[in-house]
Amino acid sequence: MHICFANPGTTELPLVEALDAVPGMRAVLCLFEGVCSAAADGYARMSGEPAMTLLHLGPGFANAIANFHNARRARSPVFNVIGDHARWHRASDPPLAADIPSLAAPVSGWLREATDSTRLADDAAEAIRAARMGQVATLIAPHDVQLGASGAIGEPIGPSKSAWSAPLPDPGNVAEAVGLLRGGGNCALFLGGTGLSARGLIAAERISNATGCRIVCDTFPARLERGTGLPRVERLPYFPEQALQCLAGLRAVIFAGTVPPVSFFGYPGVPSKLTDPLSHSIRLADPAADACVALEDLAEAIGAGDSSGGFGGRSTRGSPPLRTSGNQLTPESVAAVIASLQPEDAIVMDEGLTAGLPYFEASQSARPHTYLALTGGAIGQGLPCATGAALACPQRPVIALQADGSGLYTLQSLWTQAREDLNVTNVILANGGYKILDIEIARTGAIPGPQAAALTAFDPVPNWAKLAQGFGVPGVRVEDVEGLAREFARAIDEPGPHLIEVMI
Amino acid sequence: MHICFANPGTTELPLVEALDAVPGMRAVLCLFEGVCSAAADGYARMSGEPAMTLLHLGPGFANAIANFHNARRARSPVFNVIGDHARWHRASDPPLAADIPSLAAPVSGWLREATDSTRLADDAAEAIRAARMGQVATLIAPHDVQLGASGAIGEPIGPSKSAWSAPLPDPGNVAEAVGLLRGGGNCALFLGGTGLSARGLIAAERISNATGCRIVCDTFPARLERGTGLPRVERLPYFPEQALQCLAGLRAVIFAGTVPPVSFFGYPGVPSKLTDPLSHSIRLADPAADACVALEDLAEAIGAGDSSGGFGGRSTRGSPPLRTSGNQLTPESVAAVIASLQPEDAIVMDEGLTAGLPYFEASQSARPHTYLALTGGAIGQGLPCATGAALACPQRPVIALQADGSGLYTLQSLWTQAREDLNVTNVILANGGYKILDIEIARTGAIPGPQAAALTAFDPVPNWAKLAQGFGVPGVRVEDVEGLAREFARAIDEPGPHLIEVMI
Repeated sequence: MHICFANPGTTELPLVEALDAVPGMRAVLCLFEGVCSAAADGYARMSGEPAMTLLHLGPGFANAIANFHNARRARSPVFNVIGDHARWHRASDPPLAADIPSLAAPVSGWLREATDSTRLADDAAEAIRAARMGQVATLIAPHDVQLGASGAIGEPIGPSKSAWSAPLPDPGNVAEAVGLLRGGGNCALFLGGTGLSARGLIAAERISNATGCRIVCDTFPARLERGTGLPRVERLPYFPEQALQCLAGLRAVIFAGTVPPVSFFGYPGVPSKLTDPLSHSIRLADPAADACVALEDLAEAIGAGDSSGGFGGRSTRGSPPLRTSGNQLTPESVAAVIASLQPEDAIVMDEGLTAGLPYFEASQSARPHTYLALTGGAIGQGLPCATGAALACPQRPVIALQADGSGLYTLQSLWTQAREDLNVTNVILANGGYKILDIEIARTGAIPGPQAAALTAFDPVPNWAKLAQGFGVPGVRVEDVEGLAREFARAIDEPGPHLIEVMI
Repeated sequence: MHICFANPGTTELPLVEALDAVPGMRAVLCLFEGVCSAAADGYARMSGEPAMTLLHLGPGFANAIANFHNARRARSPVFNVIGDHARWHRASDPPLAADIPSLAAPVSGWLREATDSTRLADDAAEAIRAARMGQVATLIAPHDVQLGASGAIGEPIGPSKSAWSAPLPDPGNVAEAVGLLRGGGNCALFLGGTGLSARGLIAAERISNATGCRIVCDTFPARLERGTGLPRVERLPYFPEQALQCLAGLRAVIFAGTVPPVSFFGYPGVPSKLTDPLSHSIRLADPAADACVALEDLAEAIGAGDSSGGFGGRSTRGSPPLRTSGNQLTPESVAAVIASLQPEDAIVMDEGLTAGLPYFEASQSARPHTYLALTGGAIGQGLPCATGAALACPQRPVIALQADGSGLYTLQSLWTQAREDLNVTNVILANGGYKILDIEIARTGAIPGPQAAALTAFDPVPNWAKLAQGFGVPGVRVEDVEGLAREFARAIDEPGPHLIEVMI
């Protein structure tokens, strides 16, 4: 445990003091708790280790819930500590008192209230171990329990051996998958978790080469390695009609590191479950298991050869040429510019939503990069998750592809990027409204009246360049492809955070 | 029900459509749900009627919890509607699914999930009636239930007779209070709720004139009428040591519209309950009862005369002269400028925290105004609550006295002020950190190490003028008293929102 994303208050002061007592702990202030939770998520996705979050009572924690929801869906390990009132004081119902367990339970895979000062360090150790299973572990620490434990320091907990202490895959599942794949025909590997690591993908490609199966991944993967030199993965489309079509007619689907996909929203007449009901589905590796190892076991069991062309055949690390028709900013031209110019080993946090859609396809042949998605649909994750990723990987450039409406949820992230001097290039895809909602309204066949229309369009249009400057991040607005290419290249070249507002 | 503060998504679309089907409904978009909940609170405090909030699933609602917490502590009526997934879809655990009742229960005095489309309008009517009791009433509406009810419109619900449908006070309580007050000696009326309305305060003053009792109010009243021409009220100090001293030695405390005060935080060796244990405490009117009527009954029962000097004697509506020593911006000089220049009938939302402390005293003789405080301690209420107050009272100027750190929690409020062209003057008290936390650390006797120090100071210092401009609100930074006086006068004169960043 090396980092703590915090916005503490009076009831956390003994823990704040403790942050200075433990060498190697870094406290990172976030100006809103929703930044803390997403930053911890981003840190965990890139380091494989939990970050700590330190939050103030029920209301402070409540501000972090939406992004803990995303962390939960990403299966990110987070050690979350909430200070509470001293128990003798809580009984009097002071103004800030709230039912913290009721608020915390929906996002916490592990939840405990500390009741014994002499066991507080053990509680924390147990929470960290629980977090490493791939969940948010929440420890509620009443002020009196913290005070009683002051000065006591627990045993240090070493790094976990594998990223998330994942259990080994079941050999029976491997044998079943071999049988299905040997049966021939139209099969797919459906990957998530460590199945989308470079090693997992290479194993999947070997299986695909040996059997002809497809390789598909979740619409919103927590982390995916991709670009030149890495096997390609089909991403399941967002809208259920297209997703159903993508998976239709498969004889078998083998899940590794994820669960069968479900439609993002329920639409009357469209099934929730996106897998073809006639397909044979098996779980090679549960989300909690190590999908990478399971895929390697499967590749061996099936007698697959080396990966196609060998890694050497994919080692071209040049950039794809920049091809845009004209100088106009569109989701397509923006995607082409970013994909063409993004540097090697970039981390790309994609909360581009509708305006970001073309990027995934455009960046298939971009320089090798790590791709992070909005896992739980709670908007406002992108900027803070990129912030946490940058803290986990200070040597790697981070690019946040951010839809404007969602980005406004947690724009305070920019301040933490400025304070910590993080190498993040924030690309705001500014289309001036909640376009996804316009699309959803159109799907219902309704014609929005004036009240409905007021709820999807931004008028006045926020000026992100000024918002960035207000938080100490150099911000520019660009109006054409040339401007974007110039400013993006500059932002990548210069150290520290930058923001480019792209007027689509 | 005339207004709906909303940030809806796909699962609320039938309700969004309904907003256009009901004449007289106004949909107000907020760019973050924490703005919705505080705006509804501010609207309710100023209109006495509930506003509606319309929020998207568990994560969207979660973003609103902190300010619902404040609304709950203010006993503000709010009709809160959360769309949920269709129930047939929820069973498949789609990405945005969460345990909404567990999240909603801690802030909702009334909570129901609609299960029958034909009863949805009745559920809503019941929720509105429940809200009028002075609470957040949450109705969870699954998408399938909304769809089934499309086209059906419920019976309109008329305005409630008294502001919050408050029950009448118990005559036995009045008789007991008469006995205590006639016993002579050191007594106090301790007021909240409608006890702090102009009528309630005038009744309290009559009682005070007849019996010599003091008039005290909560540290953070939801709404208080004050200034020239209105009776003065002692505000209970924030820190418990001073609050205990304020209430020490009282023979009796008569509570009307509020409950006995509790220390904001628990400090070892300091009691939670701030009333002198030797005092006789009685509840003249519970928070749910109409304290104003109870005070008038008590004034009659005690045979109190007219209010001192009559209303005429307090009708001087001139401004207090501006007296500041020098041109330097300090909490004191800022308070003096605002108190001197604030126009008649202003609504002042005070989330000034440490930098705002001198304002309450300085404005005792300001032109008559309504004072709103941060009731539940969940920071980030000021700017959006001022926004809602401005929508409730379009003819009255609104002043938001806002601490910088707290204001950054919900700065998206500025955009709604710009879009709705609201007459709000936002005064940001910029001292560049969480100063209250520095004070609390000093109280513990600890000397903050570098990690602790990093958690209270803002470096870089945000530029609020630019942040305001980014949201379409004219923003300026002032560095001296003259600049503040000039810009404040200009902001009050000009229509629409303004922001003044006061560098203390």
